[in-house]
Amino acid sequence: MKLAFLGLGVMGYPMAGHLAKAGHDVTVYNRSTAKAEAWTKEYRGQHRASPAEAAEDAAIVFMCVGNDDDVRAIALGPRGAFAGMKPGAILADHTTASAEVARELEREAKGKGLGFLDAPVSGGQAGAVNGRLTVMVGGAEASFRTAEPVMRHYGQAVTLMGPAGSGQLTKMVNQIMLAGLIEGLAEGLNFAMRAGLDASQVAAVIAKGAAQSWQLENRAPTMIEGKFDFGFAVDWMRKDLGICLAEARRNKSALPVAALVDQFYARIQERGGTRWDTSSLIHLLAKP
Amino acid sequence: MKLAFLGLGVMGYPMAGHLAKAGHDVTVYNRSTAKAEAWTKEYRGQHRASPAEAAEDAAIVFMCVGNDDDVRAIALGPRGAFAGMKPGAILADHTTASAEVARELEREAKGKGLGFLDAPVSGGQAGAVNGRLTVMVGGAEASFRTAEPVMRHYGQAVTLMGPAGSGQLTKMVNQIMLAGLIEGLAEGLNFAMRAGLDASQVAAVIAKGAAQSWQLENRAPTMIEGKFDFGFAVDWMRKDLGICLAEARRNKSALPVAALVDQFYARIQERGGTRWDTSSLIHLLAKP
Repeated sequence: MKLAFLGLGVMGYPMAGHLAKAGHDVTVYNRSTAKAEAWTKEYRGQHRASPAEAAEDAAIVFMCVGNDDDVRAIALGPRGAFAGMKPGAILADHTTASAEVARELEREAKGKGLGFLDAPVSGGQAGAVNGRLTVMVGGAEASFRTAEPVMRHYGQAVTLMGPAGSGQLTKMVNQIMLAGLIEGLAEGLNFAMRAGLDASQVAAVIAKGAAQSWQLENRAPTMIEGKFDFGFAVDWMRKDLGICLAEARRNKSALPVAALVDQFYARIQERGGTRWDTSSLIHLLAKP
Repeated sequence: MKLAFLGLGVMGYPMAGHLAKAGHDVTVYNRSTAKAEAWTKEYRGQHRASPAEAAEDAAIVFMCVGNDDDVRAIALGPRGAFAGMKPGAILADHTTASAEVARELEREAKGKGLGFLDAPVSGGQAGAVNGRLTVMVGGAEASFRTAEPVMRHYGQAVTLMGPAGSGQLTKMVNQIMLAGLIEGLAEGLNFAMRAGLDASQVAAVIAKGAAQSWQLENRAPTMIEGKFDFGFAVDWMRKDLGICLAEARRNKSALPVAALVDQFYARIQERGGTRWDTSSLIHLLAKP
């Protein structure tokens, strides 16, 4: 299938790679050309100088960029994807962005006879590299049916959650849950260390019971070690929590702990941890 | 082996039952005699009128009561367990209590030539009934080696965490982690419902990723339903968080979210939810 992929960051680069490796004809675009050239070399695809040109012949145009502003620029700009896409083509946006921008892009797409899916992912860089992402999709069912088998090349779970924006809203729920979960984990492990317990043994025992979580099993060892130079960066988490808190004002849901944890991440940014993994919440407790 | 079990509440009753079913000779004591009689009938054991009498010939005396004051009364009172135990016997306390009372009881035990283990459990009533509890033990290794095979009759994991008090401290870590985890889950699910998503579908999708937890898999369905008349009661959680917060003042660890969630549980008590499951945190968000 003729595909395009716009945005070759830590997520987009390997995701586009999976599509090429699966035999699809992939044309890419990236703001910095060097990365597009490296990708083209590695996967024998083509790259173009603008989203519009890259999108020209594609049945599905994927994108994965930074934030709402980037999404608007890459999709709606004068040389943006919508300006190049052929009738009936689908734009699938893997960026974690607001539900509003998703609804806005769907309206624009409809007006042009195009399809649109918001399709944020979870699973991080490792999930993108291993093709084990969770893809949460919002949009029309017909577009989903076309895009879903293609997304399976990097998605272990690809699910239609509802109309446009529903993918983004689902991703928000994920980040809200993570905020409380990781802070609880950080407070527990820090308490364990200050109480003189063997925190690794405590984590292993607790993981057998009702406080079990993926984060406990996968992040406790590095939290105890104080190792944070990997994973999902605090800057990205703050971007995501900002989206959650803005949406919560609209749908009138209270997020007392997510809001508090967002402030903790602001303090981690202040102490230079902008690129640290989200598990660095324990740093504030261990070194207040 | 000759054993005693003191305290036949929702946990102690089935735990003592597992010991009898395994062929041990179990003598029980309970404050209200009716329960002791019922237990004796069901499991063909004996019951006595005081902890001292029940403990008389036992190699290991187990207890599972309400709080620090109950532990002190049952162990140290004039007709308490220590007054009846034979030299070399071990008192194993399954109550969730403070680390201080554990250290106090170990000192008392040593002075009398007895052994002491603090051994709080997690896994709830279901774990007690099914014999699948996690037992977190503090105390001397020799006492642990004697008691561990017996505890295995109701414990799927029985682990020595360190010296006296370490079992209690480990249980505290568990409760601290749960506080943040359940509040994160509650905020996420409430947000999902207010955003118009299918919260059950959202929970199923998110459980495949980095926000996976036992609580998400086992409590999301009832949280979405608003069903809380089961499980681990808010009153008990407040007792446990009270112990955690007091210990945190001593070991100087910050518990910003656990302290906040403790206040949320206080509000649930005020609205009549004293016996609701801990997952009722979502009730405050759904019906503020």
